Amino acid sequence: MVTSAIYAIGSELVRGQIIDTNSAFISGRLGQLGIDVLEITLLPDQENHLVEAIQSALSRYDLVVTTGGLGPTFDDLTAESVSKATGRPCEFNAVAYTHIEKLLTGRNVELKETHRHQAFLPSGAVLLPNSMGTAYGFAVELENTVIVSLPGVPFEMQPMVEAQLIPYLNKRFHTQPRYTDVLRFAGRPESDVDEQIRRIGIPDGLECIINASQGEILVRLMSQDQDQLTRFAHSLQKSLASDFIGAGDLSAAHVLIDQLRKYEETLAVAESLTGGQIGQTITAVAGASDIFIAGLVVYSNWAKIKHLDVPQQIIQKHGPVSYECALAMVRNTIRKFETDAAIAVTGIAGPSGGSAENPVGTVYIAWYYRDRLRAKRYHFPGDRVGIRDRTVKIALTELIKLIRETRTGPE
Amino acid sequence: MVTSAIYAIGSELVRGQIIDTNSAFISGRLGQLGIDVLEITLLPDQENHLVEAIQSALSRYDLVVTTGGLGPTFDDLTAESVSKATGRPCEFNAVAYTHIEKLLTGRNVELKETHRHQAFLPSGAVLLPNSMGTAYGFAVELENTVIVSLPGVPFEMQPMVEAQLIPYLNKRFHTQPRYTDVLRFAGRPESDVDEQIRRIGIPDGLECIINASQGEILVRLMSQDQDQLTRFAHSLQKSLASDFIGAGDLSAAHVLIDQLRKYEETLAVAESLTGGQIGQTITAVAGASDIFIAGLVVYSNWAKIKHLDVPQQIIQKHGPVSYECALAMVRNTIRKFETDAAIAVTGIAGPSGGSAENPVGTVYIAWYYRDRLRAKRYHFPGDRVGIRDRTVKIALTELIKLIRETRTGPE
Repeated sequence: MVTSAIYAIGSELVRGQIIDTNSAFISGRLGQLGIDVLEITLLPDQENHLVEAIQSALSRYDLVVTTGGLGPTFDDLTAESVSKATGRPCEFNAVAYTHIEKLLTGRNVELKETHRHQAFLPSGAVLLPNSMGTAYGFAVELENTVIVSLPGVPFEMQPMVEAQLIPYLNKRFHTQPRYTDVLRFAGRPESDVDEQIRRIGIPDGLECIINASQGEILVRLMSQDQDQLTRFAHSLQKSLASDFIGAGDLSAAHVLIDQLRKYEETLAVAESLTGGQIGQTITAVAGASDIFIAGLVVYSNWAKIKHLDVPQQIIQKHGPVSYECALAMVRNTIRKFETDAAIAVTGIAGPSGGSAENPVGTVYIAWYYRDRLRAKRYHFPGDRVGIRDRTVKIALTELIKLIRETRTGPE
Repeated sequence: MVTSAIYAIGSELVRGQIIDTNSAFISGRLGQLGIDVLEITLLPDQENHLVEAIQSALSRYDLVVTTGGLGPTFDDLTAESVSKATGRPCEFNAVAYTHIEKLLTGRNVELKETHRHQAFLPSGAVLLPNSMGTAYGFAVELENTVIVSLPGVPFEMQPMVEAQLIPYLNKRFHTQPRYTDVLRFAGRPESDVDEQIRRIGIPDGLECIINASQGEILVRLMSQDQDQLTRFAHSLQKSLASDFIGAGDLSAAHVLIDQLRKYEETLAVAESLTGGQIGQTITAVAGASDIFIAGLVVYSNWAKIKHLDVPQQIIQKHGPVSYECALAMVRNTIRKFETDAAIAVTGIAGPSGGSAENPVGTVYIAWYYRDRLRAKRYHFPGDRVGIRDRTVKIALTELIKLIRETRTGPE
């Protein structure tokens, strides 16, 4: 088993001013190679901390990947820190400097003394060329550990991982690739899924991670044995068939679009509390335009009455947060946009606007699919963002289930 | 100086399956208290690693904050790991269990053996109540270090930081708070803002960081001297007045809503490539319903023609991605929804659908405000998400500027 750590370097990361997404990218790629990432650490631009962290990693991991701190400015300290931690003094590297010179001349940037800084690399380092910027990456090979340093700019770093790091690691470590899958369920508490997993039993060599995410339960599987993974995924999917949403990297929106496309059917949505988020989520999937006809955001009572023809009496008698309003919204959406399927949502996302009868988090969702009309009342926990996120997720996953039921018969 | 580390716990984080945003949130808040965060580490759900990491932090930091791993499932190991690292055995906590019982009963969830798991906490721990979920937080106080454990669900963790962690740390550590501000500008390159900052001059003791983010330039300021911070912020805002969007945590959507509310005016939007994201962004601000009348998502050509009355000839002659289409969309939005202001966007978010004339990233945005009609063509870099994010940001910030110009006269 090859073990590794990833160090993302930059004070802005540790201060919380910028979210680190590089480490997740690198970790995903190492995982597929069969390299275990046991730690991701974000470190400030302070040499003593960097040297200490790298040194302590040398005794613990086979591979350390750093990202960031390879730029030309005074607070770019990665090369020096790696040098001090490994005892390989920094030396002027003519190949790296020629690259910097060529790139900057091509961009009409005047060469300055600070640019030479980027050409000082630990002696004996293996160079990892950067086609998008001046910062060369490098690998320092010690007896038991390899340290690889990559730049922090995502669009420089990512192609270097694909073109430089992965081939390098494949040659250096002889690992067995890992197979992964993700199963998504909706409509049950996490503890139910946990129970099924325990009942089936996780075989040796299979890693299984459960996460609840806004109304969906994600089960991530990883194994070096593809048959083992497939068998387990199949059992779990079967045991929770009616609440299974999809597998792999496909989002619920993607599953729904694929489902509708298969039957050459269309969708429209009417949104109150989500304000457009259901439409946004559906159209986040490229090529949704043949399926997704239109969305209407009717945020105010007036808009519901005037632009979606919800009868004024319904609003007066039952309020905008009611079964009656949700049902009128979904019926009129079908009528207005002439689609095969429709979703309508109305509710109270908070922080204010709640009542004893309809506290913050009360949401009515209505669905229509081929003569079937369904509506449910929910009470979602969380803040405004959380309530809206859950509404979107459940609006989509329940429609997926309604379509499946309609097409294959009742559960 | 009080030093700290943040540990985000969860195999899905280390595997790169989920981006950790909790640490950034906590780090920002600790920074404001005057507590230096020197390290953020993401750790897998493996007890030996957690125990080792926490133990090694005890000798290095005054404060360790963990987030995640407090749930009811087999892979939630934070309480046990803190217990082992500190030598404080886990004990059944009746107060925490009563809370779990009450919360689950209220949600009609059947209590199971696994739910008891969440009530086992290190002995002597100070409880940090969680009003949003079953996982209580806790603080273990050692001679030189305090370890605070919070849940990983953001909407549970964030209010706990505000209501529990900050008051607790204020009492425990006597730090000098740091004042922070963020100024947002739009419509200029980062280098222009940088130039103004250099011209004004950054005084000693003030930290100033510039970031470009989706068409906005964010200037973050931090100082222990509130007057100094206010003076500098005021000078910078004044020197770039026409491109100033807002200060503090107010998003562009919030600034726009406040502006319209002041004049008792209303807004509607018509969205193509953003699919509802502009509506979502506006309604993310609580209480937008008196301002935001309606949104219409017309993703397909057919929907533009049929539901927004865009003349078919415009689509045929100029295409859906054109000045003509954007202008027709914004005019008809005003007519249909009878608002004072309107935004319409149409463009190509990719990855496919681009042409030589209109490559991926081509976006037309049109605005209408009190007889003023304006439209602009953009070419945004980035992927589908980036192009949509930029479109939303610029649609909002340019309307803010148009309203300001109209109300206060031309620049």
